[in-house]
Amino acid sequence: MVAAHSIPNMFFILRKFCSEEQRRNLLLFIVNLLQVVPIDSRKIEAALTNSKFKDFEDCLQDECAAEINADFIITRNIDDFANSKIKPILPGDFLKTPL
Amino acid sequence: MVAAHSIPNMFFILRKFCSEEQRRNLLLFIVNLLQVVPIDSRKIEAALTNSKFKDFEDCLQDECAAEINADFIITRNIDDFANSKIKPILPGDFLKTPL
Repeated sequence: MVAAHSIPNMFFILRKFCSEEQRRNLLLFIVNLLQVVPIDSRKIEAALTNSKFKDFEDCLQDECAAEINADFIITRNIDDFANSKIKPILPGDFLKTPL
Repeated sequence: MVAAHSIPNMFFILRKFCSEEQRRNLLLFIVNLLQVVPIDSRKIEAALTNSKFKDFEDCLQDECAAEINADFIITRNIDDFANSKIKPILPGDFLKTPL
């Protein structure tokens, strides 16, 4: 799955590497490939009142992952998810995980 | 109303002006004051396939505003909403609008 707010974030970050058309096509591919978990007021309030996370957006990611009972949150920042409901995993470790 | 993705954006932008606690309190106030319109896959796909907007996030704002039949989109960037479904209005002009 991908959290809904990650799409505008990726659109912004990828501006350094891809044209606008490439970004639109890449993100459409991702949106069609993965489940998009919506961001709503409940998750936003939960993240705003949870100070266990250093980063508010990381907490939103955890709220999205928890909603769909995800097995892992794939991230390069394991330490930032020390207090998450869903276990963080490095991308390389995830790829070694048996399906 | 406020579009859901505006909350993490504001949390990021306000880091230059407010402490983390102030940002959490301010955004909780906004979330409780205004209707938060969720960001979901339908709106994201609509915005990714709409090239009438220069800015993808502006188009997401318009999708949120259209969903609730908003009267206006309050923005300082009127030109960026030239092709929006919902009419853009400057903050100062909005304040002069009769209720």
